[in-house]
Amino acid sequence: MKLYVYFIVLTGLILLTVTGCCNIPYNIHPASTKNQSRCEAIMSNLAKNDPNSKLTWFDAKVIGVEGKGWTDTEGYYERVPAKAKGILTNAALNYGKHSSGLYVRFVTDSNTISARWKLRNKELSMFHMTAVGVSGLDLYVHDNNTWRLVGIGRPLQFPVNECVLAGDIIPGTYEYILYLPLYNTVEQLEIGVDPGSMFAKASKQTVKPIVFYGSSIVQGACASRPGMSHVAILGRRMNRPTINFALAGNALMEPEVADLLCELDPAVYVLDAVPNCHVGCLNANFEKFVVKIRSAHPDTPLIFFEEICYPNEFHTLQKPTQNDNITFLKLFKQLQDKGVKNIYYITSKDFIGTDGEAFVDLIHPTDLGFMRMADALEPVLKRAIKKE
Amino acid sequence: MKLYVYFIVLTGLILLTVTGCCNIPYNIHPASTKNQSRCEAIMSNLAKNDPNSKLTWFDAKVIGVEGKGWTDTEGYYERVPAKAKGILTNAALNYGKHSSGLYVRFVTDSNTISARWKLRNKELSMFHMTAVGVSGLDLYVHDNNTWRLVGIGRPLQFPVNECVLAGDIIPGTYEYILYLPLYNTVEQLEIGVDPGSMFAKASKQTVKPIVFYGSSIVQGACASRPGMSHVAILGRRMNRPTINFALAGNALMEPEVADLLCELDPAVYVLDAVPNCHVGCLNANFEKFVVKIRSAHPDTPLIFFEEICYPNEFHTLQKPTQNDNITFLKLFKQLQDKGVKNIYYITSKDFIGTDGEAFVDLIHPTDLGFMRMADALEPVLKRAIKKE
Repeated sequence: MKLYVYFIVLTGLILLTVTGCCNIPYNIHPASTKNQSRCEAIMSNLAKNDPNSKLTWFDAKVIGVEGKGWTDTEGYYERVPAKAKGILTNAALNYGKHSSGLYVRFVTDSNTISARWKLRNKELSMFHMTAVGVSGLDLYVHDNNTWRLVGIGRPLQFPVNECVLAGDIIPGTYEYILYLPLYNTVEQLEIGVDPGSMFAKASKQTVKPIVFYGSSIVQGACASRPGMSHVAILGRRMNRPTINFALAGNALMEPEVADLLCELDPAVYVLDAVPNCHVGCLNANFEKFVVKIRSAHPDTPLIFFEEICYPNEFHTLQKPTQNDNITFLKLFKQLQDKGVKNIYYITSKDFIGTDGEAFVDLIHPTDLGFMRMADALEPVLKRAIKKE
Repeated sequence: MKLYVYFIVLTGLILLTVTGCCNIPYNIHPASTKNQSRCEAIMSNLAKNDPNSKLTWFDAKVIGVEGKGWTDTEGYYERVPAKAKGILTNAALNYGKHSSGLYVRFVTDSNTISARWKLRNKELSMFHMTAVGVSGLDLYVHDNNTWRLVGIGRPLQFPVNECVLAGDIIPGTYEYILYLPLYNTVEQLEIGVDPGSMFAKASKQTVKPIVFYGSSIVQGACASRPGMSHVAILGRRMNRPTINFALAGNALMEPEVADLLCELDPAVYVLDAVPNCHVGCLNANFEKFVVKIRSAHPDTPLIFFEEICYPNEFHTLQKPTQNDNITFLKLFKQLQDKGVKNIYYITSKDFIGTDGEAFVDLIHPTDLGFMRMADALEPVLKRAIKKE
């Protein structure tokens, strides 16, 4: 009899290890609590002991941050690989170390969800971007086959903030995405839930990611909160992992960057570097950049964004983006003429409109702009990925 | 002969005084420079002497700020009348003294337009609102029968900022609107133009204004810049003056506030106080508030906004806005039953949508939200004003 119990326990432990235990199916419904007790027990062992808090805290590393193209980053909540230190300029590295595009996906039945996060940079906001967008958190829940905002993390001080992201939740087990700051770096992140709650890593997304490369806009300037960059919006809409390899102000399409991007294996590349890479840069780098990616990934769709046209150009003698886009379109057509397949081009007019209302300054979109960008990119992504 | 010259000069001076000289027709086209020399000469006399600047600076008071319901305000760039000091609470007064909804309309042919403004409060931004929105400036130009963004004033320091709003402008004479900060108070404002440029007050708008009364949302939280509150957007779209009498957090529909609003003579009142005035407040104040306004303005349309539904209410046990809106709709229908005419009701679903994406936190709209609010309100305004 004792041997019989031993085998049951052993088999259970093996199954737990093999299945990953907490990989709960993607669509969690409030009534779906079948995995609750198993996951609760296991995750509870990984909870941090905090006698000063009424909540049970988990280091987000326990479930793992997503949206990283490389695991070997200098800081855990950074995007660029450690080896990029000798490759990228310091300016590019600086932005590449921001947590933009990183997110944590978890499942819990807690009535309350809190977060405690430590920031690296004391500049909590920018003159044209809120502290929530620059240094805050953003929580979405999967509900009725869509993702919906349920709370934000307010960065009110430096370096550590703690706040309730969501409370008074309708009882049930839900899957959440927690987005990390767009223009700051998280040093440490903990998620707090009610004692005794289930807390588990969400099931792995098995489809290939969408990789974004680009300028400050792709990094998320100036979304009001981390979940409102077009990268985040489209990750939700497409139900796909996203990797944000934006390097604000430094998206110059250098061959070394192409080499890094080639290491990834995405469903599609979205390339939006022209706001940084102007005529000279385009002529020098663009074709080589594409050739490198095409050599490594012959069939992966490449979607190109034209440079976003400044909303005041109708009123100024100089049209800074005009020459860039003429050159860019010419180079794009040359690619087509050379038989490069699976490439797409989205005009500024199509993705940001022409009314000028979608900018906070004369360069960066607001949430209104990012929504327009997502609306324009979504059908192209669907076409590109379907074709693939 | 000398007497003849004397009469010509005298007649000219009389004409200048009677016509107001610089009331240039509303639609200014680049080629329209017929009033240039007259206005240049006259305004030049009012320019400030600033030997340290290459520009010619004008105090905005010279042409006058617009969007004020009362001229007798304590500070020039405030909205509430001085007498409100004994009527409103200190909290309400505090917000009523912010410059939200104030704007300067001018005409110039300058190649460059700069601004220098002094702020009262050192909190340049809020955690969920950019410094540009809280403390900055926003410049639009009238172009091709619409208004378009051409520049912003970046508030990078306290108390005085100076920056170029627009430069390298295509030669021509244009009409501009300069919007003032939404959550700070301007103490002083100067506009700088190229020496020798024409600088004039834009022609008076002769139609009645739209008066807005409401909470922090109506005051503009959390537009990315001053021109993106729905009040500003609709002022541009409707080509009408707007008066923003929002009192963030303090829109409680007290009888004293109704008395103040009755002093105005608008084309329409837009009333959006339910985010602050909940069930008890509504039951106590709403009907009396409307009766007072109706007594003073029997035919002026009243447009009511339902309380904006929090984007996370689908996920929480408590639905804070639900009871408010049930009560509000009941009271609104009672007005209809009593035969009160020309009243309109806009639901939260209709003005902000149900996807939850248009908020920066769980209460305040972003530019995406304000655009939705403007889109929803515009046809109702047009119907209401046409009917009137």
